[in-house]
Amino acid sequence: MVEPATATQTAAPVMPQLKDELDIVIPTIRNLDFLEMWRPFFQPYHLIIVQDGDPSKTIKVPPGFDYELYNRNDINKILGPKASCISFKDSACRCFGYMVSKKKYIFTIDDDCFVAKDPSGKAVNALEQHIKNILSPSTPFFFNTLYDPFRDGADFVRGYPFSLREGVPTAVSHGLWLNIPDYDAPTQLVKPLERNNRFVDAVLTIPKGTLFPMCGMNLAFDRDLIGPAMYFGLMGDGQPIGRYDDMWAGWCIKVICDHLGLGVKTGLPYIYHSKASNPFVNLRKEYKGIFWQEEIIPFFQQVVLPKDCTTVQKCYIELAKQVKEKLSKVDPYFDKLADAMVTWIKAWDELNPPTAGSSVPNGKAA
Amino acid sequence: MVEPATATQTAAPVMPQLKDELDIVIPTIRNLDFLEMWRPFFQPYHLIIVQDGDPSKTIKVPPGFDYELYNRNDINKILGPKASCISFKDSACRCFGYMVSKKKYIFTIDDDCFVAKDPSGKAVNALEQHIKNILSPSTPFFFNTLYDPFRDGADFVRGYPFSLREGVPTAVSHGLWLNIPDYDAPTQLVKPLERNNRFVDAVLTIPKGTLFPMCGMNLAFDRDLIGPAMYFGLMGDGQPIGRYDDMWAGWCIKVICDHLGLGVKTGLPYIYHSKASNPFVNLRKEYKGIFWQEEIIPFFQQVVLPKDCTTVQKCYIELAKQVKEKLSKVDPYFDKLADAMVTWIKAWDELNPPTAGSSVPNGKAA
Repeated sequence: MVEPATATQTAAPVMPQLKDELDIVIPTIRNLDFLEMWRPFFQPYHLIIVQDGDPSKTIKVPPGFDYELYNRNDINKILGPKASCISFKDSACRCFGYMVSKKKYIFTIDDDCFVAKDPSGKAVNALEQHIKNILSPSTPFFFNTLYDPFRDGADFVRGYPFSLREGVPTAVSHGLWLNIPDYDAPTQLVKPLERNNRFVDAVLTIPKGTLFPMCGMNLAFDRDLIGPAMYFGLMGDGQPIGRYDDMWAGWCIKVICDHLGLGVKTGLPYIYHSKASNPFVNLRKEYKGIFWQEEIIPFFQQVVLPKDCTTVQKCYIELAKQVKEKLSKVDPYFDKLADAMVTWIKAWDELNPPTAGSSVPNGKAA
Repeated sequence: MVEPATATQTAAPVMPQLKDELDIVIPTIRNLDFLEMWRPFFQPYHLIIVQDGDPSKTIKVPPGFDYELYNRNDINKILGPKASCISFKDSACRCFGYMVSKKKYIFTIDDDCFVAKDPSGKAVNALEQHIKNILSPSTPFFFNTLYDPFRDGADFVRGYPFSLREGVPTAVSHGLWLNIPDYDAPTQLVKPLERNNRFVDAVLTIPKGTLFPMCGMNLAFDRDLIGPAMYFGLMGDGQPIGRYDDMWAGWCIKVICDHLGLGVKTGLPYIYHSKASNPFVNLRKEYKGIFWQEEIIPFFQQVVLPKDCTTVQKCYIELAKQVKEKLSKVDPYFDKLADAMVTWIKAWDELNPPTAGSSVPNGKAA
């Protein structure tokens, strides 16, 4: 049985990397132990907390953290009518934090995720590993059998084309979970006692053309490269579906990364996922998604983005158009979602106006 | 620094699986320690040894092994003029063993590969892991972030489409190497001291549409499903290239598995690779391959096999045709190789005539 790291194990001072270039985005913190456990790792960074429920409740952030907190009233005030694209009473609201951040990198994590230990018993600095993943290239065009060739002690193996060894910029780093695996409600119901005890010491690029189930529990990305596509959709209050926020974002970002020549990595770092959510509640949130995804995934597998989609925003607007055309027949929800995707981009651009002399905002061209 | 398992560590009795359905194919054994170290694992199985050099030399197999040995004279006698498709003075000749086997499964291993230890110090039964890989389905159509969902303690994660969870039959299991990594000559020259000490406890399906560098050092496959495509090409004596035998087979089998709906796995098991081959010799063998692969890989990435290619043989003959058409302009060698591919299939069918009432020989249809 794996266990999380103790406070003593995580107490070693941590050398912060990219301190001024990374924000940590956290949906509602219901458990203050969460911040205490992560203190040695998170304290050097700025936190953006997006509160997902009743705005009259206040989250007490322990002293010593540099943070900003947004509740629903703040979101409504900042976005006005465009706030409609941000989910309410669902952790999908976290994507508002991606939008208000002014940093190049985002790390997002759930409040039931604690510090994991590696097989030697050492506390895993998840943030440091995400940064390593994102700062080294990805290799989506050919599979390297020794996994990430940019890790210490690894390289490209015999037969890997030299022309592909430069790799492409990494836009997304998807981390994993020890203890409670990220299962759907049916699997939770069937295997209530299954725990993930396997520490797989690998990071790999998800090949071009391959989709994956992106989990938002432990995720980092380059806002400049892919931020405008990291929209967590319409979930929770008033919506027919939940627990597909991160999946939706995952399908969208993968298709756009493939189109723009950007990389997506998965594997390390692990966090320790402490608590299984209620499978009965999950089943209610998920059941439509479970059959909708049988049509959504083939849709995303076949999406072709035209050549003139040279920025993430253009790709995303085009994707919204195709969602409306092809998925509205699955359920009227997708018509609403496609509109929300467009609203999201308008809101993003309002909060993140392109500045003269700034670096290229995303993808290959401005 | 990793070390191989000792004789004591490997001495535990091993329960043989698929004893009557699997052959172990080994190119020339230059080191008799090799068989002694593997004795507890290999002794229950039948060995096919294909001697790659001077037929007047004899390989002394220690007592207790059930084996057949083929030298060049035997190959010439059995295949007649078709023996031209089998490489001479190169370990690529091992594919003759795949052809003469009458078993459903093949495990092939090099004689400088010893028994590895897992992180707990236990000797790794490579054969047992390959069998597990091959007997459980593959999942090439969507990526599972917890790796092989069929392993103990793992499953499909949230967001994995239920319609794809049955998977497809696994045709190939590609194992890895601790200690000396399988690097090309330039990388060997640049990093002479690099060793692979990272034991990655994972098996994963290589997604559909993604090519990989298949290494023949530690490889298992289902002969019935993919055998006729497991041709190691023309290498060694009289050929302009070496060390691309397994790569060639890897490109061909992957394209054909993708077309026929079969799976290819990589990851566990590890073997301990004891000896780096000479990088100067390797450079001479490889240098043409290093620039040819820049054209060969895009060719294989774009190959489309017509729908009427419903068996491995039909796929392979079609592939030979396209190699002749598209790669002969790279070098006349590919014209010769395309002819050898056709000869290989003729020889395969001669030695493996379809028998009435036998199971479907390969792929989806006979």
